Amino acid sequence: MDLDPAQLKALAAVVDEGSFEGAARLLSVTPSAVSQRIKALERSAGHVVVRRARPCEPTVPGRALLRLAREWSVLEAEAAGVLGGDDPDAHVRLAIAVNADSLSTWFPPVLAGLAPHVLLDVRREDQDHSAALLREGSVMAAVTTDSAPVQGCRVHHLGDMRYLAVAAPHFVARWLPEGPTHEALGQAPLLAFTGKDALQDRFAEQVTGRRVDPPRHLVPSNHAFVELVMRGLGWGMVPEQAARAGAARGDLVELAPGQHLDVPLYWQHWKVGSHWLGVLTGRVVEHAAAELRS
Amino acid sequence: MDLDPAQLKALAAVVDEGSFEGAARLLSVTPSAVSQRIKALERSAGHVVVRRARPCEPTVPGRALLRLAREWSVLEAEAAGVLGGDDPDAHVRLAIAVNADSLSTWFPPVLAGLAPHVLLDVRREDQDHSAALLREGSVMAAVTTDSAPVQGCRVHHLGDMRYLAVAAPHFVARWLPEGPTHEALGQAPLLAFTGKDALQDRFAEQVTGRRVDPPRHLVPSNHAFVELVMRGLGWGMVPEQAARAGAARGDLVELAPGQHLDVPLYWQHWKVGSHWLGVLTGRVVEHAAAELRS
Repeated sequence: MDLDPAQLKALAAVVDEGSFEGAARLLSVTPSAVSQRIKALERSAGHVVVRRARPCEPTVPGRALLRLAREWSVLEAEAAGVLGGDDPDAHVRLAIAVNADSLSTWFPPVLAGLAPHVLLDVRREDQDHSAALLREGSVMAAVTTDSAPVQGCRVHHLGDMRYLAVAAPHFVARWLPEGPTHEALGQAPLLAFTGKDALQDRFAEQVTGRRVDPPRHLVPSNHAFVELVMRGLGWGMVPEQAARAGAARGDLVELAPGQHLDVPLYWQHWKVGSHWLGVLTGRVVEHAAAELRS
Repeated sequence: MDLDPAQLKALAAVVDEGSFEGAARLLSVTPSAVSQRIKALERSAGHVVVRRARPCEPTVPGRALLRLAREWSVLEAEAAGVLGGDDPDAHVRLAIAVNADSLSTWFPPVLAGLAPHVLLDVRREDQDHSAALLREGSVMAAVTTDSAPVQGCRVHHLGDMRYLAVAAPHFVARWLPEGPTHEALGQAPLLAFTGKDALQDRFAEQVTGRRVDPPRHLVPSNHAFVELVMRGLGWGMVPEQAARAGAARGDLVELAPGQHLDVPLYWQHWKVGSHWLGVLTGRVVEHAAAELRS
C-alpha cells in the first residue's frame, strides 16, 4: 500500500471542513482536485474512506488513515521547524482533549509556558469521547479518567483529583438537618454535571451503604455548578480546592466531613515520536505531581 | 392521526437511552412492549420514526413526534402537580440550552430561585446547536445568539453581552508595542473558544479595517480561556466584567481602550403554555435587563 501525504491531507481537510468544497478552500485547490485525491486514496487503501454526507465523515477504515494524516502533519511541521529556522508559518499544532474539571482547575498553567510557535487546540471532553478522539486521531493526547489504553497510545497515571460533597448552609439546614442519612439523601436534590455523571451517586452510596435516586439538576459548567451549589439549588461533588475555598468563606459546608471521593486521572498520548508532545507530556506530569493527590 | 401518549413516551425513551432495551428499563416494561408501541406509532404516523442503530436516532418525521412527546410530558407533569398536591414524585423537568459565556457569567442566579420540584436540565451549547435542540424538542428554551425564530418558538431580545479585547501586560509589550496595528495583529497569537468563534477576528477587522489571520489557540472553557489570556498565551475577547476585574488587578490590559464588541443575546422558547416555562422566561428577562447592555 503506497500512501501519498497530499491524499492524506485531503482526507483530513474534508473531515475538518465537513465538505469537499470546504477542503478545497482550505487547501487552495479545486474541489475536483480534492475529489481526485480522495478517490486515489480509496484505490490505494482498497476502502471507501469518507462518507459523502453533510457533514462528510470518515468511515472505519478512513479513521485509521485520518490518524495517520494527523501524525504525519505533526511530524512534518516539526521537521519543517528544524529545517526552516525562523519561518513564522512553521507552527506546530497540538490537539488535546482535557476533562472539564481539569480544564477549570490545575491544567491551564501546563499550557502557559510552551514556545510561541506551538499552537494548542484544546477539546473539553468527557472520558468516553476522549478515547474516540484519540483513536481517530482528532487529538494526540488526553487527560482522562479512562485507564484503558487506546490502541497506539501510552498511558501515565497522573494522580487523583479529590472531590468533597458540599452544599449551602441553608440547604443543609432544610434538607439534611440530621446529616447525610439514607432517607435525607434520597430526597435532597443534587446537582450532576450531565446525566452520565455518577460522582454524587457514588458518594451517597459510600456514605449510606445503599443506592439513592433523588431528584437531580444537570448543570454542565464548572462555574455554574459551584455557583448553583452555593445558591442552594442542590448538593454536589466539588473539586477539593473550590470546596475548601467556599467553606472558608462560609458559602459551603461539607455534608460528611472527613469523607471524599478520589478520581484517578490519566494522560494518554500517541506513541509517535513528536518533540513537542514529549515536552507537553513532561509539563503535564510535573504539574500533576504538584497539584493532584498521589 | 390518532396519537397515543404512551407511544410518544416510548419514542422519547428510545431516543434518550439510545436503545429499545434501555427504553424498556426506563419505562419498566419489556423490550417487546417498547417495540410494539414504536411500531403502532409508526402505523399511526405513516412514517418510520426511529432509525434502529447504535444509538437509535429519530428520523426527520420522528423528530416532530419527539418534540410533541416532550411538550406532552411537560404539560402532563404540570397537570399532575396541580392535581396531585404534594406528591414528591411530581417533578417538572425543564431542559434548556445556554451558551457558555452566559452560563459562566450572568445566568446561574436565574436558576437559583425556582421551586424545589422544578428540575433543571441545562445544556451548554453554541447557537448552531441550540436551534437543532429546540427543533427536535430536546430543550424547550435557549439563550442563544441566533435571532432567527425556530419553528414553533417565540424570541425575546435579552440585551447585548459586551466583550473587550484584552491581553497580559507582558504579551502587549512583546507583540503589540505600537498598539493594535494591522501588522501586529496579523502576527500576535490569539485565543478563540473553538474554530467557529470569530469574535477575535471581527474585533481585529473593526480596529484595523482589514482582515487578519494570525496563529490561534483554541480553548473552549471560560475559566481556562481567561486564565491563559492572563498568562500571556494570546490575546482574546473576554466578557466585560471579567476583563475589567482583570484590568483592575493589573493582570490584563485592553488592546484598544474605548472599543468593544456587543453580541446580542436572545431567549427562544416553545410557545406551549407551560406555567414553569413562563416563570423561567420572566426570570430570564428580568435578570438579563439588569445584567446585559440594552
